[in-house]
Amino acid sequence: MALDPTKHKDWEIAEEAESRMKTVYELGEQLGLAKEELLPHGHYVAKLDYRKILESRQSKPDGKYVDVTAITPTPLGEGKSTCAMGLVQGLGRRNKSVMGAIRQPSGGPTMNIKGSAAGGGLAQCIPLTPFSLGLTGDINAIMNSHNLGMVALTSRMQHENNYTDEELAKRGLKRLDIHPKKVEFNWIIDFCAQALRNITIGQGAKMDGPMMQSRFDIAVSSEIMAILSVAKNLEDMRNKIGKIVVAYDRQDRPLTTADLEVDGAMTAWMVEALNPNLMQTLEGQPVAVHAGPFANIAIGQSSVIADRVALKLADYNVTESGFGADIGFEKFWNLKCRYSNLKPHCAVVVATIRALKCHGGAPIPVPGRPMPEEYGKENVGWVEEGCKNLLHHIETVKKAGINPVVCINAFYTDTDNEIKAVRRLCEEAGARVAVSKHWQYGGDGALEFADAVTDACEEKNEFRFLYDLETPLEKRIELIAREVYGADGVSFGPDAQAKLKRMEKDPDMKDMGTCMVKTHLSLSHEPSLKGVPKNWTLPVRDILTYKGAGFVVPVAGTISLMPGTGSDPAYRRIDVDTETGKVKGLF
Amino acid sequence: MALDPTKHKDWEIAEEAESRMKTVYELGEQLGLAKEELLPHGHYVAKLDYRKILESRQSKPDGKYVDVTAITPTPLGEGKSTCAMGLVQGLGRRNKSVMGAIRQPSGGPTMNIKGSAAGGGLAQCIPLTPFSLGLTGDINAIMNSHNLGMVALTSRMQHENNYTDEELAKRGLKRLDIHPKKVEFNWIIDFCAQALRNITIGQGAKMDGPMMQSRFDIAVSSEIMAILSVAKNLEDMRNKIGKIVVAYDRQDRPLTTADLEVDGAMTAWMVEALNPNLMQTLEGQPVAVHAGPFANIAIGQSSVIADRVALKLADYNVTESGFGADIGFEKFWNLKCRYSNLKPHCAVVVATIRALKCHGGAPIPVPGRPMPEEYGKENVGWVEEGCKNLLHHIETVKKAGINPVVCINAFYTDTDNEIKAVRRLCEEAGARVAVSKHWQYGGDGALEFADAVTDACEEKNEFRFLYDLETPLEKRIELIAREVYGADGVSFGPDAQAKLKRMEKDPDMKDMGTCMVKTHLSLSHEPSLKGVPKNWTLPVRDILTYKGAGFVVPVAGTISLMPGTGSDPAYRRIDVDTETGKVKGLF
Repeated sequence: MALDPTKHKDWEIAEEAESRMKTVYELGEQLGLAKEELLPHGHYVAKLDYRKILESRQSKPDGKYVDVTAITPTPLGEGKSTCAMGLVQGLGRRNKSVMGAIRQPSGGPTMNIKGSAAGGGLAQCIPLTPFSLGLTGDINAIMNSHNLGMVALTSRMQHENNYTDEELAKRGLKRLDIHPKKVEFNWIIDFCAQALRNITIGQGAKMDGPMMQSRFDIAVSSEIMAILSVAKNLEDMRNKIGKIVVAYDRQDRPLTTADLEVDGAMTAWMVEALNPNLMQTLEGQPVAVHAGPFANIAIGQSSVIADRVALKLADYNVTESGFGADIGFEKFWNLKCRYSNLKPHCAVVVATIRALKCHGGAPIPVPGRPMPEEYGKENVGWVEEGCKNLLHHIETVKKAGINPVVCINAFYTDTDNEIKAVRRLCEEAGARVAVSKHWQYGGDGALEFADAVTDACEEKNEFRFLYDLETPLEKRIELIAREVYGADGVSFGPDAQAKLKRMEKDPDMKDMGTCMVKTHLSLSHEPSLKGVPKNWTLPVRDILTYKGAGFVVPVAGTISLMPGTGSDPAYRRIDVDTETGKVKGLF
Repeated sequence: MALDPTKHKDWEIAEEAESRMKTVYELGEQLGLAKEELLPHGHYVAKLDYRKILESRQSKPDGKYVDVTAITPTPLGEGKSTCAMGLVQGLGRRNKSVMGAIRQPSGGPTMNIKGSAAGGGLAQCIPLTPFSLGLTGDINAIMNSHNLGMVALTSRMQHENNYTDEELAKRGLKRLDIHPKKVEFNWIIDFCAQALRNITIGQGAKMDGPMMQSRFDIAVSSEIMAILSVAKNLEDMRNKIGKIVVAYDRQDRPLTTADLEVDGAMTAWMVEALNPNLMQTLEGQPVAVHAGPFANIAIGQSSVIADRVALKLADYNVTESGFGADIGFEKFWNLKCRYSNLKPHCAVVVATIRALKCHGGAPIPVPGRPMPEEYGKENVGWVEEGCKNLLHHIETVKKAGINPVVCINAFYTDTDNEIKAVRRLCEEAGARVAVSKHWQYGGDGALEFADAVTDACEEKNEFRFLYDLETPLEKRIELIAREVYGADGVSFGPDAQAKLKRMEKDPDMKDMGTCMVKTHLSLSHEPSLKGVPKNWTLPVRDILTYKGAGFVVPVAGTISLMPGTGSDPAYRRIDVDTETGKVKGLF
């Protein structure tokens, strides 16, 4: 029996369940894996050899592909990971063969404020400690791969400063003539290290590197992480890593990791990381944990490879796409599915009565402060008004040609009248609706949810992209803004206009994915605008390119690639029981 | 049949042998490990649960404990790791139950110039790729643990800058009043990143951290790595991590990771790293690979825990202590054995005819340049003269009360007359001598070597420290200088004198280990002085303290904690075969 989530913390529930969890060998047997396809890391976590698995199952049809996304969340989040785990557990209780696919969390938020991202209550991914503390080392591999690129760049700049062309030629080097003010690449570290946000490196003498401005970003925002999440296979990853633009030369020509002759070695650090990690839910269903890219400059969800593997190994793969459907699902739809060639069968839109009230007019809750008391009282009017936001996201899912399922992630203060209102409005809009109580009851609380998803997957669906690759960039951005965000149009600032012009001439641009940056707290670019904002234009101020990952990134918001550690960070409460070796205080 | 090392590169030999290597399950069975004592990482590397192994074998007597050290090396190195692997293979061929214990290499030298440190020819540790590229992630764990400490330090400094005492109190914080010019702790990264040697951090606004000078050191020089190598168990590691001094306050009082409330979380990242890694020789004997601390500010050898585990699992444990016996063996003797409470039975002093000639008068070879032609011709006179250095190291081993074995690491240009001269001089000094051809023939080439070691272990020995813990620091340093280095005495510079005075009053100092910093290229502090320098005084210019690791470090040389990446680094030749996933070009 699992512990009662109303009385125990998430990590206590996880720890108790871990005393009875399956070994990875048992999970492997359950999934029909050959011995060489399962690479154990200890007895409770494994890597899956994606190549062997995919090669030996080429003729096996894929399972049903279910994406879990959400309405526009409050700043507190609406329990999307918890719903994904709950759905996996619910399908498991219905004796379906099912796998989940979720992201690996970053060490930065885990040590700072966010908590574990493994779900919560009786719907979690375990074992919790490796999940939260680096797992099998993929993020560390990214750190080493990425920083090796910076070592190559900065030491090359130093040697070009110190040596003549003849001296360089003796070492088989041709001057790259890197412009010290046009370095695009930065260092990474997987913590919230604001002190490394703006730094000057290379101080000292001529053997101490080139002196210049530089910065550290959080590791999960790395272009290598973006590549890991969309790479089809090792060859594709190798090619993409070689295309990362690290700087421009004095003639403004782009210079890549391949120009630094470091792309092969960078890939060498990443070979193992390409294999997804196998974990399990609290109830023993297998979960692939892989990649954890930023949601703004990358897809913000688990990897193409993890989904492909899960679809071969199970009849249902429940994957998760970060934030609201305008951000997470849109990228799942037009980016990830384009890279993977996979067709989803259904998308779950997670909603809470809390978030609906917030969209309907209740005061916006603030993390760390007490919940406004309005949320404790029934208010059907606010819920109905807030459903406009939910209905907007349902329409987005329908534009992709697949079937929406609304999951009301139940909370004890929800009233029957409030839930009835949601059900009525969503069903009128053609969506299935399920109330799910996985947080409190695990898979047993998610049976209605599981059945709704099973039904939706059986129904006819015609998956289609919002735009094809012939569509010019400007038009793509406008389509996303109008059709997904509900904007009246798009305005391009001077920087964005200049970049658009330059990109028109670049033949590489056609195949690049379009990866929007916008707040997830509103359908618009303005976080405070709740519900479905009307009469607004999306202002795109800049357009970034990531030639390695293959993304064009139109920026209609702010991007912070290095969060700060707060004054009461989580690490204060984390410790180790030196008798048992167990880590305490992860939450 | 293994490949011919005169025709193939080390990585080709390793790759071929890996096609027939044992799985870790087979190795575990060979070692009598219970399933829960062996934590596989893939099928060919594992972690060993040190606690379970030691607890369940408390009453089992330890095996024979053999240290491999060397004469004062040339700048090219004399093949100490190769000899250690050769000895393990030789003992294996004699059907002895044997394990090796070596360090894990740093990513910095591997990507730069050094090569793999896994041995060479037919005496290597495999599989080579994980060995060279981070293994099971211990160095990454150190990086995360260490840098989390810096995140805690710098963000605390920021918050103390921005908040009043009252505001801090609300968060349960008391002002530490860190002096920004007295920060002792630095960041780490596991590459040769000279551009990060001298940096300014915290530029920007008040939420961007405290602006100050800072630096990155190479990860293996971290105090956490030093702690990993000497910790007795998890509790000991937890305590030591909490004692790391990160800075001084404005009243000049030391501040620790415990003051930052981050020591528990730092330990959490390190729990798994405390378990040694299990690999194997080319011929299938088990090898524990663990820790890789710097040889100057730390012990420069594999861990206490790895040796304790290997001595329980095998009848012979061959461990390695870096550089010459004056540096490596002295630390093994007076530091590592004191921490471990283990008594060695014999120490191997590795010599090459090349190094003996160098000590006897031949021109000093320079890495990267052709070998001086003198080394290709017989010169018994130089060899005999050079033996003085070897005899000095033999005496050092005898001072420890254990039996020396000289291993002549054979090279094809060695002549019978040269080898005869070494044999005669060493046997006259009471040392066993063996010529070993493991590089060319593997274990079959190391039978004489293995037999000499077996015999030496059976002989009576009376291990004793050079000094006891009652000996004052000044006296300890003098004893090491006179008895081990052959100096006439020690002179203390002004900084060192001031530190000595301060330390006399510090009650913690008595239990601290004394960990010397001196060049390994000469018995003296002057790298160019070969043979046995006479009439010299050791100049100690500074004395550092590492309260976490528990070391006092008298500095009689230079310490660079961040090497530079050269103009023709190894990463240029490293790549991945995208068909097979195999890494190519590690050497």
